[in-house]
Amino acid sequence: MMQDVKYLFEPRSVVVIGASSRAGKLGHTVVSNLVSSGYQGKIYPVNPAGGVILGIPVYRDVSSITGEIDLAVIVIPASAVFEAAKGCADKGARFIAIITSGFSEIGNVEEETRIINYARQHNMRVLGPNIIGIYSSAASMNATFGPGGIPAGNVAIVTQSGALGVAMIGKTQVENIGLSAIVSLGNKADVDEVDILNYLAADNNTKVIMLYIEGVTHGESLVDVLKKTTKVKPIVVVKSGRSKRGAMAAASHTGSLAGEDKVFDDIARQCGVIRAEGLQEALEWCKYLASTPEPQGENTVIITNGGGIGVLTADACEKYGINLYDNLPDMKKTFAGVVPEFGSAKNPVDITGQATADKYFTAINAALGNDNINAVLCLGCESGVFEPDKFALRAEDLFKAGAVSKPLIFSFVGGAEVEETIQRLKISGVPIFNDVLQAASCLGAIYSNHRQKKELLAEPEQVEFDAKAIQDVLDLARRDARRFLYSYEAQLIMHAIGIANPASNIAHSLPEAVDFAESMGYPLVMKVVSRDIVHKSDAGGVALDIDNKEEVADAYEAILANCRQFKPDALIEGIEVSEQVKHGVETIIGARRDLSFGPIVMFGLGGIYVEVMKDIAFRAFPLSRGEAMKMISEIKTYPLLLGVRGEKRRDIDALADAVLRVGAVLKRFKDISDIEINPLVAYEHGEGVRAVDVRILLSSKEVNV
Amino acid sequence: MMQDVKYLFEPRSVVVIGASSRAGKLGHTVVSNLVSSGYQGKIYPVNPAGGVILGIPVYRDVSSITGEIDLAVIVIPASAVFEAAKGCADKGARFIAIITSGFSEIGNVEEETRIINYARQHNMRVLGPNIIGIYSSAASMNATFGPGGIPAGNVAIVTQSGALGVAMIGKTQVENIGLSAIVSLGNKADVDEVDILNYLAADNNTKVIMLYIEGVTHGESLVDVLKKTTKVKPIVVVKSGRSKRGAMAAASHTGSLAGEDKVFDDIARQCGVIRAEGLQEALEWCKYLASTPEPQGENTVIITNGGGIGVLTADACEKYGINLYDNLPDMKKTFAGVVPEFGSAKNPVDITGQATADKYFTAINAALGNDNINAVLCLGCESGVFEPDKFALRAEDLFKAGAVSKPLIFSFVGGAEVEETIQRLKISGVPIFNDVLQAASCLGAIYSNHRQKKELLAEPEQVEFDAKAIQDVLDLARRDARRFLYSYEAQLIMHAIGIANPASNIAHSLPEAVDFAESMGYPLVMKVVSRDIVHKSDAGGVALDIDNKEEVADAYEAILANCRQFKPDALIEGIEVSEQVKHGVETIIGARRDLSFGPIVMFGLGGIYVEVMKDIAFRAFPLSRGEAMKMISEIKTYPLLLGVRGEKRRDIDALADAVLRVGAVLKRFKDISDIEINPLVAYEHGEGVRAVDVRILLSSKEVNV
Repeated sequence: MMQDVKYLFEPRSVVVIGASSRAGKLGHTVVSNLVSSGYQGKIYPVNPAGGVILGIPVYRDVSSITGEIDLAVIVIPASAVFEAAKGCADKGARFIAIITSGFSEIGNVEEETRIINYARQHNMRVLGPNIIGIYSSAASMNATFGPGGIPAGNVAIVTQSGALGVAMIGKTQVENIGLSAIVSLGNKADVDEVDILNYLAADNNTKVIMLYIEGVTHGESLVDVLKKTTKVKPIVVVKSGRSKRGAMAAASHTGSLAGEDKVFDDIARQCGVIRAEGLQEALEWCKYLASTPEPQGENTVIITNGGGIGVLTADACEKYGINLYDNLPDMKKTFAGVVPEFGSAKNPVDITGQATADKYFTAINAALGNDNINAVLCLGCESGVFEPDKFALRAEDLFKAGAVSKPLIFSFVGGAEVEETIQRLKISGVPIFNDVLQAASCLGAIYSNHRQKKELLAEPEQVEFDAKAIQDVLDLARRDARRFLYSYEAQLIMHAIGIANPASNIAHSLPEAVDFAESMGYPLVMKVVSRDIVHKSDAGGVALDIDNKEEVADAYEAILANCRQFKPDALIEGIEVSEQVKHGVETIIGARRDLSFGPIVMFGLGGIYVEVMKDIAFRAFPLSRGEAMKMISEIKTYPLLLGVRGEKRRDIDALADAVLRVGAVLKRFKDISDIEINPLVAYEHGEGVRAVDVRILLSSKEVNV
Repeated sequence: MMQDVKYLFEPRSVVVIGASSRAGKLGHTVVSNLVSSGYQGKIYPVNPAGGVILGIPVYRDVSSITGEIDLAVIVIPASAVFEAAKGCADKGARFIAIITSGFSEIGNVEEETRIINYARQHNMRVLGPNIIGIYSSAASMNATFGPGGIPAGNVAIVTQSGALGVAMIGKTQVENIGLSAIVSLGNKADVDEVDILNYLAADNNTKVIMLYIEGVTHGESLVDVLKKTTKVKPIVVVKSGRSKRGAMAAASHTGSLAGEDKVFDDIARQCGVIRAEGLQEALEWCKYLASTPEPQGENTVIITNGGGIGVLTADACEKYGINLYDNLPDMKKTFAGVVPEFGSAKNPVDITGQATADKYFTAINAALGNDNINAVLCLGCESGVFEPDKFALRAEDLFKAGAVSKPLIFSFVGGAEVEETIQRLKISGVPIFNDVLQAASCLGAIYSNHRQKKELLAEPEQVEFDAKAIQDVLDLARRDARRFLYSYEAQLIMHAIGIANPASNIAHSLPEAVDFAESMGYPLVMKVVSRDIVHKSDAGGVALDIDNKEEVADAYEAILANCRQFKPDALIEGIEVSEQVKHGVETIIGARRDLSFGPIVMFGLGGIYVEVMKDIAFRAFPLSRGEAMKMISEIKTYPLLLGVRGEKRRDIDALADAVLRVGAVLKRFKDISDIEINPLVAYEHGEGVRAVDVRILLSSKEVNV
């Protein structure tokens, strides 16, 4: 039975192996943090020297501890860690957290694996190694060597980097952000984001989760837990290695495979995760999301005392996907009392440079009182009549009174007095920034979270397919010890999946060819089937544009005659009679087992669009139909599918259906590693698609992700 | 003779019309700012009530002032401004600055025009109306109603918005940025960015110029002065109305035409201007650019004590166009002493969490001492051994000693102590940020400026063309009172410009047709020429793919016969024999007189790329050959011109040549308003281009920008 992660966050006892009585040593800091954070469970410092640390008796070894061990923190040199871990496991410890570094991150994989294997065999889980420890407000437990005095709050931080973990403990204090937990994952040899998120999703103290990720492992489970978690609370992610150079640096720094950033970006969004560009932005989002009610709709109003900053903010809103309310009659009615003649009730609402604090709050209250308005961005430019102090008082009162039931965010620009007001309001918990871009970025984050969460509510699409037919094809290939399918086998799979492909039959006589042709309809293509004739066209073995049964007969005879002349001894197995695929928009669907995320699918337009313009979208499986449609709509060339220059809309539903079917099969059949349909020709709406060329590769038996 | 703008920035006397003895009134604030800023020239307060303000005798009217008036600041109600301006003009005042609002910005264009016209007739220039005034450190003159106590420095701010002007005076004080000038342009009824930049370009106090622009007028002169200025000092621009919604808001706020943002963006870059996204970023850039030596090359080194933040910074460097040095042997040699075994001498250089301040400065000095390294980004994560105080001391010493001859910028992440160090170093003038993105953004700005400046050094291309032939075509169209050219006229202009078009002749007999054909070469197209036959194909009046003289003869007879049968009474003027244009990559060149920027050109690929994907680049004329090449390379579909899928490179030089020729003609012939070549077919390198369809429109005589 797997250990419950609850014991990592809320252990009833914490052992510190390598506890030290010397201040400044990591083994001292961990004990001192445990004590000063108010941890109420049992603390067992362990050090062969014995003695007392901060009034707590020290055990000489783990085995002499009599109580149950929920968590043991290890801070001794790498070479001694295995023995310590063994001691813990033998004692039945539930979790160990290995702070010590010097394992896989410097190439010492063997020792790390030895520890993990031993732990697994003894039903003990391992956090780290190469971490700063763990803090959890639920247990008032700071079991890290980072700074003390972490204020309890609602943001949980999960970080792959220990150094950034320490820095973020400091930074959250400066930014006045309370934490429910901070967990450093380090080498992720055992416990990873999936375990941690499973706990945090259900943790009532945690309102927002911030993830700092360098590389993803177990992505398929990660996708599941991310989707599950974002349904109940926002997740903000910072993923490094976004750039080529950054990915290289990440690989050399952590040994983790950063993966293609576009894949991560698309799949994170699919999972409802919002991605910040850097730490500063991520922390601002977390703070804002933890304290702000979710908007009930898409109508944001900007209130400003300066036209210029109003325009800059309208620009920022477009950048961050914030929709501005534009019902002018309603706006005029709402702001009738506060917009002077030379101001504007259009959004941005300009209450002009003459606006006093009272005027501002009349406007703000009007916006808060109108249910059609879902969010308010309030801007202030320093002016002769702008009253920062009075403004601050009223803002504090408003928030204290619990009167703010929708997002209301401020941004001021000005001198020292204005800057002091900003700092004061920040401390009072009023969301305010000295840069409109930051304010808009936070509001944008709450809207992204809101929208993505809605999309997650759609159920993954259940797809029916002929599993037996597919298995038969795969079995045959496996018996041949092939890692690929022949083209016709791939087409059989398309058929079994339910993706339309060109109809095709192999005729062994002229009457049979005519029968096929008449039942299939025209135009048709006919091709010789012979393993002895590789280049069919060169042999005169191909006929195109066949429009009636007379032409079928002519082509049949001509192909046979040509091929017999070309290669008299060729074994001719038959003549393939196929539907001639009409011209349409060429698309590509590619699906593969990604090392990070498991089964993923790629969609794009054929020709140069994918190759040269990299115009593609990714998703992980399973997928809802709505998500598949959204994926297709995300490519920049989507207008070509909607129809340009008088062309009609293409069959986008059929494309989405194909995406879902390819994914369902890849998810189900672990034997398949890659499916590429290129081109998948899309016809006009209602006329479906045709999988013209299909390439399917099989997994190596070893790597069966 | 035009007034020298020097008298606006360095007036020997300032009149304040509407001066008031009541504190809080704008007319008082202006006088009090003048006095407290230490202005040494004559101050003449004017108020009908007379008296004394701040110890200065008040004049009852302008006419009673005896001395010369260089600048008069007007702060009386709009209805009285004309009379005051008239008084100033009659007195020979050089400049007036109308602070008063209530003119064109609220639709009162007439009064504004009346003032400007009177001023122009009397050789008096007008700043505003609707402004906050002007501050200039050269004259120690704060003639604004904004905050006082502006610290003198090297950044000049030119702002269209007065409200943002006031706010930025405050903000620059908070950010510790000294100003050489701040000028509010308001309605730009007369004095605009062009006048101001002409002064600031030559002003020794000004090292960096920041422009806040809502809409551009006189763009053609603006392009010239921007190019001239950025050769000697950086210009940072914030342009609002970037988004659709923002542009709408800008139009309703200022009445200025925001124009297409992509045009502004491309042309600003062409002029060497660097564009910031918001005010905060712009001010950070200005501060950094004013204090930092220009890099001598493209090699940046990141020094870090944390791998994670190093990777995030590598990402940020890619985003901001910063090139990371990658000569590993040189890096290893340079950082041999400071990188421990488990650190990395690869860029980012990881001196590990064990790095002390001394270690840091050994690394920094090593980087400063290596001439192959041109810029250093130094990161610090709070850690047990990180010594913020000691670090700060050493950084201050380094900068004070003048030992920093290349960009060196810091970013720290951590708690209160780290944050205090950041604030302390900011005040000491050491470039430091608590967000790596901001640090990278500043370094990116200095590199953008550096690169764009280099490109400006190339001389605009001089293009030869047959001006007389072009004028003849235009004259004929004007005589016909046409605003467009016929297709063959447009082709005549292509010929005169020197852009290859399909060869074409009109034959009036079969022998003539054969002669033309034989001299032109094959394949050819033949078409009937008859104003009576509109749809030539329907009449059988077109023949394609003519490959030899026999086919010429056949086609000639066939066309005549078909057309005679189709319309027996048609007057057939001849048979056009034209080069049949080979298939190639279709491009589009469009050139027009832009309301903001004058003659501009657009380039993109034909078909859906321009229409659907909006993949276009703009430039203003004149243009250097290098800039034309760069413009072409900026489109996302550029790889299609370089050759994909085994295709050869297209004749990009010929495309650039066509861009330059189209531009030169548009610039020279004010009669032409639009030229569109669509398609301009590009062949393989060395084989040139063909202007297949050309559309040319003529300017209306009224709007002759």
